[in-house]
Amino acid sequence: MKLDKLCGDRFKEKPADCVINSHALMVRGGYMKNVANGIYSSYMPLKRITKKIENIIREEMDAIDGQEVLFPVVMPASLWSESGRYESVGSEMVRLADRNGTPLVLGMTHEEAAVHLVRESANTYTKYPFMIYQIQTKFRDEARPRAGLIRVREFTMKDAYSFHTSQEDLERYYEICYEAYNKIFARCGIPEVITVESDSGMMGGNISHEYMLLTPIGEDSIAICGECDYRANMEAAQSIVKNEPNGEDNDLELVYTPHMQTIEDVCNFLNVSVEQSCKAVVYQKNLTDEFVIVFLRGDLDVNETKLTNYLREEIHPGEITEDCGLIAGFTGPVNMDREKFTVLFDKSLEGTNNLCCGANQPDYHFKGLKISRDVEDVEFTDLAKIKEGGICPNCGKNSIKIARGIEVGNIFQLGTKYTKSMGMQYQDAEGNLQYPIMGCYGIGVGRLAASVCEAHHDDYGPIWPMSIAPWQVHICCLRADDENCKSVSDKLYEDMLANKIEVIYDDRDFRPGVMFSDADLLGVPIRVVCSPRNLAEGVCEVVTRDKSINEKTPVEQVMDFCKKLIADLMA
Amino acid sequence: MKLDKLCGDRFKEKPADCVINSHALMVRGGYMKNVANGIYSSYMPLKRITKKIENIIREEMDAIDGQEVLFPVVMPASLWSESGRYESVGSEMVRLADRNGTPLVLGMTHEEAAVHLVRESANTYTKYPFMIYQIQTKFRDEARPRAGLIRVREFTMKDAYSFHTSQEDLERYYEICYEAYNKIFARCGIPEVITVESDSGMMGGNISHEYMLLTPIGEDSIAICGECDYRANMEAAQSIVKNEPNGEDNDLELVYTPHMQTIEDVCNFLNVSVEQSCKAVVYQKNLTDEFVIVFLRGDLDVNETKLTNYLREEIHPGEITEDCGLIAGFTGPVNMDREKFTVLFDKSLEGTNNLCCGANQPDYHFKGLKISRDVEDVEFTDLAKIKEGGICPNCGKNSIKIARGIEVGNIFQLGTKYTKSMGMQYQDAEGNLQYPIMGCYGIGVGRLAASVCEAHHDDYGPIWPMSIAPWQVHICCLRADDENCKSVSDKLYEDMLANKIEVIYDDRDFRPGVMFSDADLLGVPIRVVCSPRNLAEGVCEVVTRDKSINEKTPVEQVMDFCKKLIADLMA
Repeated sequence: MKLDKLCGDRFKEKPADCVINSHALMVRGGYMKNVANGIYSSYMPLKRITKKIENIIREEMDAIDGQEVLFPVVMPASLWSESGRYESVGSEMVRLADRNGTPLVLGMTHEEAAVHLVRESANTYTKYPFMIYQIQTKFRDEARPRAGLIRVREFTMKDAYSFHTSQEDLERYYEICYEAYNKIFARCGIPEVITVESDSGMMGGNISHEYMLLTPIGEDSIAICGECDYRANMEAAQSIVKNEPNGEDNDLELVYTPHMQTIEDVCNFLNVSVEQSCKAVVYQKNLTDEFVIVFLRGDLDVNETKLTNYLREEIHPGEITEDCGLIAGFTGPVNMDREKFTVLFDKSLEGTNNLCCGANQPDYHFKGLKISRDVEDVEFTDLAKIKEGGICPNCGKNSIKIARGIEVGNIFQLGTKYTKSMGMQYQDAEGNLQYPIMGCYGIGVGRLAASVCEAHHDDYGPIWPMSIAPWQVHICCLRADDENCKSVSDKLYEDMLANKIEVIYDDRDFRPGVMFSDADLLGVPIRVVCSPRNLAEGVCEVVTRDKSINEKTPVEQVMDFCKKLIADLMA
Repeated sequence: MKLDKLCGDRFKEKPADCVINSHALMVRGGYMKNVANGIYSSYMPLKRITKKIENIIREEMDAIDGQEVLFPVVMPASLWSESGRYESVGSEMVRLADRNGTPLVLGMTHEEAAVHLVRESANTYTKYPFMIYQIQTKFRDEARPRAGLIRVREFTMKDAYSFHTSQEDLERYYEICYEAYNKIFARCGIPEVITVESDSGMMGGNISHEYMLLTPIGEDSIAICGECDYRANMEAAQSIVKNEPNGEDNDLELVYTPHMQTIEDVCNFLNVSVEQSCKAVVYQKNLTDEFVIVFLRGDLDVNETKLTNYLREEIHPGEITEDCGLIAGFTGPVNMDREKFTVLFDKSLEGTNNLCCGANQPDYHFKGLKISRDVEDVEFTDLAKIKEGGICPNCGKNSIKIARGIEVGNIFQLGTKYTKSMGMQYQDAEGNLQYPIMGCYGIGVGRLAASVCEAHHDDYGPIWPMSIAPWQVHICCLRADDENCKSVSDKLYEDMLANKIEVIYDDRDFRPGVMFSDADLLGVPIRVVCSPRNLAEGVCEVVTRDKSINEKTPVEQVMDFCKKLIADLMA
C-alpha cells in the first residue's frame, strides 16, 4: 500500500470528544470515523487490525471444534418472545417493523438464534457436544456510548454457543474455552488480561467469567485479592464482614437527633464510628414503584446488581414522598411495615449490637439496636459492595484491592434457560427427552483492538503487536526527490511485496517530521528509513516502533533482517 | 470436521417452498435455515463456502488497489437526506428510530457512507484515484423474497466505491474492475458469467453493467444478439424498429368498433396486422395520480424501467374511471388533451402511416392514422421492450434472442450524483475546487454461492468447485465397526488434517446409502471411500463429485493423490 493514497486523515490535535488515549489515537491516526453517536466507519488500518484479530479468534475457536455459522442481524420478534426476552430486555434492544408491520429486532446477542438453528437437528445425544460460533455485526442501543470503540452501539462480535448433555460436560468444555480465550488475548498482544468471576446479568445462568484488561480508564470495577488468586467483578464479588459484639447489649433507646439526616451526622453526634450504625437505602421497583428498603452497615454501599438479582426485578433509587409512609433520613428497621415494604438486611448486620438507626419518626434515631432482638423474622442476605481493604471471600484476609478494567471477553454457563423456554430437546441413551445445557462465549472485536491500543501506545501513537498490526513494515523514503533514495526505496517496496511482506510505503514529498509522526500514528512494528545520508554509507535504518531495536542495516540485508524480525515478533 | 457432530439436517424430500434447485439442495443439505421471510441463518458448510468466496473477492479487490474498510449497518437518516435518497427510496429501505427517537436506516447500499468516510480527507487531487470496499451485511426489505439466497432481505455483499478526478480515469478504472469481476466469477467456478449493459436505476449515473449467469430460473430477462456481441438487460436494451410507409397515406376515418376494447380485436375486425395499429397503454404517476399515456406499435410492450427513467417518477398501471377523461379501450392520440395528460410516443411509431387507433369516444376507432400529420408536437422516445427476433441495436440484424439470468454482480459509473449532493470536493492541480467522479461495484456473496450451485449440481446435490467447496476431501468409512476399516480411515483423516487438507470425515455407523447421499448433498469435490472389501485389496476408492475420476488407489498413495487432485482442481 502506498501511503499517499491511504484514505483517512492523520493529525496532531487531540479531538475534544476523546476522553481516553486509544480513542484519541485511533481518531488522530485515521483508523475510524464517527458516523453517529456510538456508530463508526473503519478505515483500512483498523479493518486490517480487526481482520487479523478475527482470524486469531477463528483459529482458536476452530481448534476447540467450533463450527463457524452465521446468524441474521435482523430477527423476528417472535423468536425473542419464545425465550421471554422480547419483553424482558429494555430499550438497549432496537425494535422495528418491516414493510408489512411484522415486528423485528436488531441482534444484540444470539442465544435465541443459536437454539433456533440447531433445535431440530440436534435431536439425539450422539450429536453432542458441539459448539457453534459466528463473527458478526451486532447493535445495542447503549444509552451512553463512550470511549471510542470501548462502548459503541454497533460492533463486531464473536459469539459462541456450546450445547451439552450434562453439567459436567459443560464444565469440561468451559475450561477448554477458558484456555482458548487466554490464548486469543495472548496472541493479540495482551497476555496480561485476567479473568474475574462475574455476574451473569440478562444472560441467565450461574457461573460466568469476564476477561479484563486492567487499566485506570476501564469501566468496570474489579475486586482483586493481594494474597490469593481471588478476582471478581465488583458486581459479583461477595462482601464478607466479620462482626463481633461491641460490648454488652444496651437497651434500645430513642434519641432526639434534630435535622440529622445522614448516618454520618448521627454517628458524629452520638460519637460512634459508622461501623456502629445501621444505614437504610431506599429503592423502588421499576414495574410497581413498591418500595424496597435495604439495611446495611453504615460504612458499606449497596451492590445494585446483587439487589436486582435477588429481587429478580429492575429497581431505581426511591423517591420518598410525604405520604409514602417513610421518613426521609430517619428510616430504620424497628416497627417497619413489612407488609407494605420489601425490607432486606445485608449480611454486614449479622451478629452486631449497639447500633444506631433511624426511628421512623422525624428527628429521632434509636441507639442500642440489636437486630436479632429488636426486629422479627430477619434473614441476612449479601447485598453490599465489596470494598478496598475488605475481606477476601477466598482466603479470608483483609486484602481486597479495587482496580478498574475493560471487559474484553466473557464466558457464561447458561444452563437450560434457553433450551427449556424454546423447547429444544434431545433423546438420551435411554430414549428419554432431555433439555441440552448451554454455554456461551463472547469477544468484542473492536473493543479488543482498542484495548490493545490502550495497553500498548506512547504519546505519539499505538504500538501494535506484530500479530495484529495493520502492516508489518513501514518504509519511509525521506527524499523522494533524490533519485537514488527513491529508487532504493521503490525496490525495497517491490521486493517486500514480492516476498509477501505486508508493507506500507511512504514516498510523499513531505518533511521527515511529518512522515515520522504519520508512521508513529500507524504504529507499524518495523520501520525502514531510507535517506541520502544513510544510503551514502550503504545502509537503511531499521527501527522498531517500540524503540527496542534501531539498527543501521546494509541495504541488501534489509529484507532478510525484516523477515527475521517479523518472525521473532510474531512468536 | 467429524460429520457426526456437524450441525444441520440432511434429508431427501424436496421442501415444498423451494422453487429452484439450488434452494432445495441447500436446504436439503443443511446449508441454511429460514429464520423469517427472506432471512436465513447459515450452517457451517455454507459459511465455509461464503468465506472462501469473500476471500477470492478480497484478493481481487486488493489486487486492483482496493482499500478494505467497514461502513455501519445502521446509519443516521440524516446521512441519506444529504443525497436525497432518504426521501426518494421506497419501502425497501427499513427506517427505524433509536431510544431517543433519532431516525435511522438499515444500509441497503453505502454510497452515502462511502462519501462520508472520505469527503474531508480526499481533499486534493494527489490523493486520487482510490477505491474503498467492504464486505458487510445489508438489509433490503424486498416485497417478495424468493428462490432461497437469490432474493433475500438480509444478505452479505461486497460493495466498492472508486473516486476519480476525470471521467477518463473512471473509465480506465471501470475497465480494470470489469476484468477483476470476470476473474472473480471464473475463480468461483462460473466463468460462463456474461456481462450485459444495464439500467442504473436508483443508483444514478449512466453506464453500468450487470454480470449474469444465464439460467432459465433467472429473474432477469436479457437481450442477446446471435450475430454480434451485443448483450443488455431487457430493462436497458434499446428497442429498434424500422418502419416503412405502408402504401399511400389514407385519410383519417372514424370506424364503428362496438365492444372492441383490445387492439387485437380491432385489428382482426379491420383485417390488418397488429403492426398497423397504435396501441395506448395507460399509467398513473405514484405521487400525483396524473395519467401518463404511452402510444406504441400494437405488437410491442412498454418497458416500464425506461418509462420511469424518462419521467423520473415512479408509476403504476392507470385506473381509468368514468370521469377521468379517458375512454377505456378507445384511447387514441388524436384530439388528446395534452394539458391534462402526459402523452408519450414510442419510436416504433416513427415513420408509420395508415394505422388504426382509439378515437377517444366509446365504440369508435380511427383508421388511416398518420401521426406526423394528425397529431401536433410529437416527439418519439424509446419506451418499448426489445423482443425476441427484434433488431440488434449494435449490428442492426433481426437477431435478438431473449434469455433469462441471475444477476451476480454489477458495476456502475455513478458520476457526481453523490459527491455533488453531499458536498465532497477536492482541489485540482490549478487550485480549483472540483467534484470527484465515482464508480461503484457490487457482488452479493450469498447469491453468488447459490448461483454456483444452480450452475453446478445434479439430482443428488451441489457439485462445488474446489475453489469454494466447504471441504476439499470427504472420507467415508463404510464400516466403522470393522477394526481395520476404522483405523485406516482414522489415520487418513489425521494425516490429512496434519497436511492442512480441509477434510470432513464420516465414520458414523450408518448404511453406505445414507453416507453417500449425505456426501452428495455436501458436494465435496473429492471423496475417499474406505471399505473392508477395498482394503482387502489394499486400496481406497477416490472419486470426484462430478464422477469424472474414480480410481482405486493404494492406501499409502491416497494422500498424495488427493493433494495432486486438489492442486489440479484448484487451477
